[in-house]
Amino acid sequence: MTYCLGACVEDGLVLMSDSRTNAGIDQLGVASKMHFFEELEGRFLAILSSGNLATTQAVLAALRTDLRDNKTPNFNTVTSIRDAANYLGDVSRAIQDKYASNRDDSFSPEADFLLGGQVGDGPIGLFHIYSKGNFVAPTKFIPFLQLGEVKYGRPILDRIVTPRTDLETVARCALVSMDSTIRCNASVGPPIELLLYPAKSSKPVHIVLDQGDPYLEKLFLAWKENLRSAFDALPPLNWNKPA
Amino acid sequence: MTYCLGACVEDGLVLMSDSRTNAGIDQLGVASKMHFFEELEGRFLAILSSGNLATTQAVLAALRTDLRDNKTPNFNTVTSIRDAANYLGDVSRAIQDKYASNRDDSFSPEADFLLGGQVGDGPIGLFHIYSKGNFVAPTKFIPFLQLGEVKYGRPILDRIVTPRTDLETVARCALVSMDSTIRCNASVGPPIELLLYPAKSSKPVHIVLDQGDPYLEKLFLAWKENLRSAFDALPPLNWNKPA
Repeated sequence: MTYCLGACVEDGLVLMSDSRTNAGIDQLGVASKMHFFEELEGRFLAILSSGNLATTQAVLAALRTDLRDNKTPNFNTVTSIRDAANYLGDVSRAIQDKYASNRDDSFSPEADFLLGGQVGDGPIGLFHIYSKGNFVAPTKFIPFLQLGEVKYGRPILDRIVTPRTDLETVARCALVSMDSTIRCNASVGPPIELLLYPAKSSKPVHIVLDQGDPYLEKLFLAWKENLRSAFDALPPLNWNKPA
Repeated sequence: MTYCLGACVEDGLVLMSDSRTNAGIDQLGVASKMHFFEELEGRFLAILSSGNLATTQAVLAALRTDLRDNKTPNFNTVTSIRDAANYLGDVSRAIQDKYASNRDDSFSPEADFLLGGQVGDGPIGLFHIYSKGNFVAPTKFIPFLQLGEVKYGRPILDRIVTPRTDLETVARCALVSMDSTIRCNASVGPPIELLLYPAKSSKPVHIVLDQGDPYLEKLFLAWKENLRSAFDALPPLNWNKPA
């Protein structure tokens, strides 16, 4: 399983991913699910991946090969973040189609992606590219998108993240959301990667927080204690306890 | 969809259910998913239901008919809560088998149940009866069981509910868990029913909280505000914001 999150707010873009891979509970691994492209010109694009690891690796390799060989399109020729999403969807669909013909019903080559970034001076964008290759952006009411194990960490996002939330608060809320998910699903795990891309500077900041990271430990302990206090302060239910 | 919860702690038993039914998003209804049996002798049994509404209604009707006609077994003849679970599983399986033979792949007669209660002076028990008729009890590490839309409301249960948590706290935590679920899934909704069964008195207390209930409104508002404060007090992420 996987838990990835992208949020596109007025202040900029936040991406987060876990790093656990599994092909059965007895075959756990660690792989980054946050991918960058160093050789881009006048643009920033980052991809979060979930689903079949063979597919996501093949898609990433194809994108890099297209860049290296100057094929059209590639991430340097697309003229908008929406074009980039369309291109990524096409590449993903082509690779999945190759393996879908194997007619093994228990096998699924499906993969989903979040693509975030900015092309030139265009708007900062975020898309969820489905396994079919089509894609959606977040809305102005709910400025975030999730991949994978999305439910455990959802309630806190709904309460905190709005289009006007500042980047640090979005990132902190993302980590709290990840904490709930890791506690509930053994196939989601550290290192946790964060990407903050401020609209003002257009300079990405990439942070990797591994298990035992002092900030993570402090944050998760504080959340545990604060949540307990928040619960204990709730008005009690008057239920006429029988004698 | 449905959200039901049962918790069996040292203090007794807590059951909770939502009341929304749906057969497609354009066909919403309200039906109680918490069922009692008034005519039992020296025992208390309550059932929470999820899944196909035709199945759950047929199962409940069959259980009541068996009681009325003094068939063997019925809820008055079972000698333990485990026997009651076994009997309920058999009835459920028989009714599902009748309709499973329709060979319509898009149709599922499946239903799941939580059964909680006490037979005579035996231990208070709780079981999740799966659609196949087999069943599990909670463990001493995690004393609760959930049905339906289980993920949104899970993290707070993991943090609060232990075998030593008192009944009022378990019930309050159940309501907070329901709040998160209702906010995230439009097919889970009020009235919310609660059942508290204290081990000491063996007298069940049944509470129905409809939308707009003053306690529910006070509780959910307090949770919203306390959660926000709990989040705001977390240590900020130091991320070297670019100039």
